[in-house]
Amino acid sequence: MSRKIWVFDTTLRDGEQVPGAKLNLNEKLEVAQQLKKLNVDIIEAGFSASSAGDFNAVKEIAEKVGNTDDIFITALARAVKADIDAVYHSVKYAQNPLIHIVLGTSDVHVEKKFRKSKSEILNIGVDAVKYAKTLLPNVQYSTEDASRADFEYLWATIEAVVKAGATIINVPDTCGYAEPEEFGELISKINDRLKNVNDHVLLSVHCHNDLGMATANTLAAIKSGADKVECTINGIGERAGNASLEEVVMSLNTRSDAYHAYTNINTKEIMNTSRIISNLMGLEVQVNKAITGENAFAHSSGIHQDGLLKSREAYEIINPIEVGLEDMELVLTARSGRHAVKNALQKLSFDSLTDTHFEGIFEAFLELADAKKEVYNHDLYVIVENYFAKHDNLNQNMTHYSDHFFELIDLQVISNTHFPSASVKVKKGDELLEGSSGGSGPIDALYSTIAEISELDLTLIEYNISSVSRGKEALGKVKIQVEYRGEKYMAKATDTDIMKASAFAFINAINSIIVDHFLQNSNRAHFTTNNG
Amino acid sequence: MSRKIWVFDTTLRDGEQVPGAKLNLNEKLEVAQQLKKLNVDIIEAGFSASSAGDFNAVKEIAEKVGNTDDIFITALARAVKADIDAVYHSVKYAQNPLIHIVLGTSDVHVEKKFRKSKSEILNIGVDAVKYAKTLLPNVQYSTEDASRADFEYLWATIEAVVKAGATIINVPDTCGYAEPEEFGELISKINDRLKNVNDHVLLSVHCHNDLGMATANTLAAIKSGADKVECTINGIGERAGNASLEEVVMSLNTRSDAYHAYTNINTKEIMNTSRIISNLMGLEVQVNKAITGENAFAHSSGIHQDGLLKSREAYEIINPIEVGLEDMELVLTARSGRHAVKNALQKLSFDSLTDTHFEGIFEAFLELADAKKEVYNHDLYVIVENYFAKHDNLNQNMTHYSDHFFELIDLQVISNTHFPSASVKVKKGDELLEGSSGGSGPIDALYSTIAEISELDLTLIEYNISSVSRGKEALGKVKIQVEYRGEKYMAKATDTDIMKASAFAFINAINSIIVDHFLQNSNRAHFTTNNG
Repeated sequence: MSRKIWVFDTTLRDGEQVPGAKLNLNEKLEVAQQLKKLNVDIIEAGFSASSAGDFNAVKEIAEKVGNTDDIFITALARAVKADIDAVYHSVKYAQNPLIHIVLGTSDVHVEKKFRKSKSEILNIGVDAVKYAKTLLPNVQYSTEDASRADFEYLWATIEAVVKAGATIINVPDTCGYAEPEEFGELISKINDRLKNVNDHVLLSVHCHNDLGMATANTLAAIKSGADKVECTINGIGERAGNASLEEVVMSLNTRSDAYHAYTNINTKEIMNTSRIISNLMGLEVQVNKAITGENAFAHSSGIHQDGLLKSREAYEIINPIEVGLEDMELVLTARSGRHAVKNALQKLSFDSLTDTHFEGIFEAFLELADAKKEVYNHDLYVIVENYFAKHDNLNQNMTHYSDHFFELIDLQVISNTHFPSASVKVKKGDELLEGSSGGSGPIDALYSTIAEISELDLTLIEYNISSVSRGKEALGKVKIQVEYRGEKYMAKATDTDIMKASAFAFINAINSIIVDHFLQNSNRAHFTTNNG
Repeated sequence: MSRKIWVFDTTLRDGEQVPGAKLNLNEKLEVAQQLKKLNVDIIEAGFSASSAGDFNAVKEIAEKVGNTDDIFITALARAVKADIDAVYHSVKYAQNPLIHIVLGTSDVHVEKKFRKSKSEILNIGVDAVKYAKTLLPNVQYSTEDASRADFEYLWATIEAVVKAGATIINVPDTCGYAEPEEFGELISKINDRLKNVNDHVLLSVHCHNDLGMATANTLAAIKSGADKVECTINGIGERAGNASLEEVVMSLNTRSDAYHAYTNINTKEIMNTSRIISNLMGLEVQVNKAITGENAFAHSSGIHQDGLLKSREAYEIINPIEVGLEDMELVLTARSGRHAVKNALQKLSFDSLTDTHFEGIFEAFLELADAKKEVYNHDLYVIVENYFAKHDNLNQNMTHYSDHFFELIDLQVISNTHFPSASVKVKKGDELLEGSSGGSGPIDALYSTIAEISELDLTLIEYNISSVSRGKEALGKVKIQVEYRGEKYMAKATDTDIMKASAFAFINAINSIIVDHFLQNSNRAHFTTNNG
């Protein structure tokens, strides 16, 4: 029988502690609204006592996002009256408010951090719960550093706070020290005893990722009886972060045979949520991050691409559509084999090329791929056109694809503190086009100029650049999302000059739009019927 | 008793398959040399048959890095003669060459990818091993997609290839489908039977991270008898990547009580290796990546900083020195409490401030932290100086710290395709300084200009920028490493304009150098003796 697992999201508390990731009030509200769309059960909205800003954010989220019956809003308090009051006065506006109290249980926390005796700390915890219960019916108690605590003391604490009225017991692996087998055993032992004390109490875990095992520990706890898990989007949080919501949720979905448990998460909102939080917090997601990384569903080796085209199951255990992506991505690079390139050409309706033609086109593809790293659909059009222009009689009625695409010829961008501006020269077929424009910053100036030249009504949705040193030079990688007529286009480019990389990415996006909107009804079939 | 675990690094094969991460020959050699310093047991240097470039790289690594007795060099082959020949002719130059053959074992791989019967595939595998054994004594056989294979067929394959001479059996979780408990059981079953067939064969695992459990699965396999693990640095690789070498190795170190196993890895080279590979491949490491992420040992919340200053064990399970970092990092932000700020001031020798003075300084700190996100040592000097200038009589003999620091006043950077240049105006105390310079790109021009103005002999070691959209604007974060007189300085800065962020980061680095080299012998103690 499948059990429901409660999902408690702490992106706005543990996640927001990441240096430099601080959000303002509106950004926090936007994240909370998105978490509601994702259908998490509980949002931890902040640490109310830490500042007036945190207090207000928790209050606003309680009022505006906690205004329905299907979500709990909580915030963190140390086991002191002032903290508990701050949480109460900020979360009470929610339909389902919850007070979350944290207090250490390991010897190092009790004796070295608090410099008190175990029984003193236990009593402080019990008093805190009793006080919180005078304010609200729902109180969660976190036994900080539980995985390194003496078990009998940990259990004594849990038993005492449950008797004092705690409705959720959360067992944190605060330092990411646990490993799945022993963490599962710990949860199992607590679960067995807890049932005898009060079987309405929810048993929860909060795992950190210092040794890379937060997800596995969380899942082991679920197997051992945990009812609720604490997670963050993209696994962000203090130090190496927390268990990733997307990994835990998709593991339960993909491996329901092993876990017999489910969540209420609307998985199709996972990618959206990841992007919004990454963008608002300015925290890039590593390309190979499980589920939400740029390459998580991208297949690049020739062997894998070939296998996938024969049977998707060969290298795919999650359909990317399940997490809100469009589909799996076969990135065309120098490592792509014939099978993948032929498949991409077929999708563009070049579907009856002879073997000789295909070999010639494949050769040209490899040459371009070596130079460009990634090959786009508009590149394939140009490759095909060039091939037939050289090797065969061109049908006179055929579209000259390359006439539709833009190519960067020259650019100048002036960055300064008062009036950034850009000038760009591009080629479209035989036409040379140029323009200049100011902007709020160098990239804004550059993109305004190119958009003007293209005469397309474009909106820049997302702009990401990353550049890490590569040998002596820094290699800038730009990734953007552009909207045109309600549709979103992703594009990328790489160059040692970050301004050039930015320009190339924008032009790649424009060329993708042209493929979609201006070549759909062209007579590309002529290639194949007349020359193929 | 503690068992030795063999570490097989596949950063140059599975890792290098990441789109855009392709390395040239010299870069591959540099990575291989660093992996040798890290003391891995086996380097998988490439996929020899895939291209002439791959073949040559494997050959060069075999010759130049495989020239000692303490390391094996291998490369990947499909179970076909041409691939095996390519591996043999490229790895044979190593003192310890190894042929690695891979062939599917799951139903989907056998029937849908290869469209053959199970016995046909089994025979192809056996023939491949027999052929490889005519070339070299050491042959590894990988049973691709083993975690989804029918167990009896998987075992029949293993038994047959071991009888044909395979010396290492590698069990891949190709699609990242496994979970630790069941993967441990699988390895345990194989291990039990394998001992009866040939107890000299090494049992190995290769785990992918699609559900975020590659590290936990690898460690579960070690508990269950695996002798060898396949990993990559930073966990890079196809899709969501592979088990991270650093996570597996540091888990074995930190939790030797649970695993009773060790590796020969020189852990102090972990951070170096991670940085070299991230920089050469242009793959940024997520800030909260376990072990190698920028924040893995950075503590930011006030509660944690306070706890750590009382006892490091409270929130630290690995001493960062163990992986080659300098020490734990308490990042001073608006969330830092009094304890952390007082500690930072004491380190700068402001160690006998009165409570009143400290409160005033702490208030000024919070104000700056709100505006600047991160506060540096040179900021603390200026805060202290300003505080005493306003609130107390300044001792006339005291150093005016702020006179030593640089401050950006204005800049202009021109990016173009032919002659990038920059002009910068900075303030140092009351002096206004300015300069202009060309460069190979806009950042080079900008940094050359600032370096000239500073009159310090600076070398830029590393330049990283990442910018992800934040609301309507993209927030650029720049992180650099600069060398001065043989010492390395890290600095960071954030601004919506990437050029300004770059300039701020460089000026932060210069100010850190000034703190270290020009204020060490100043009379800063005057603050405390005369005014404190």
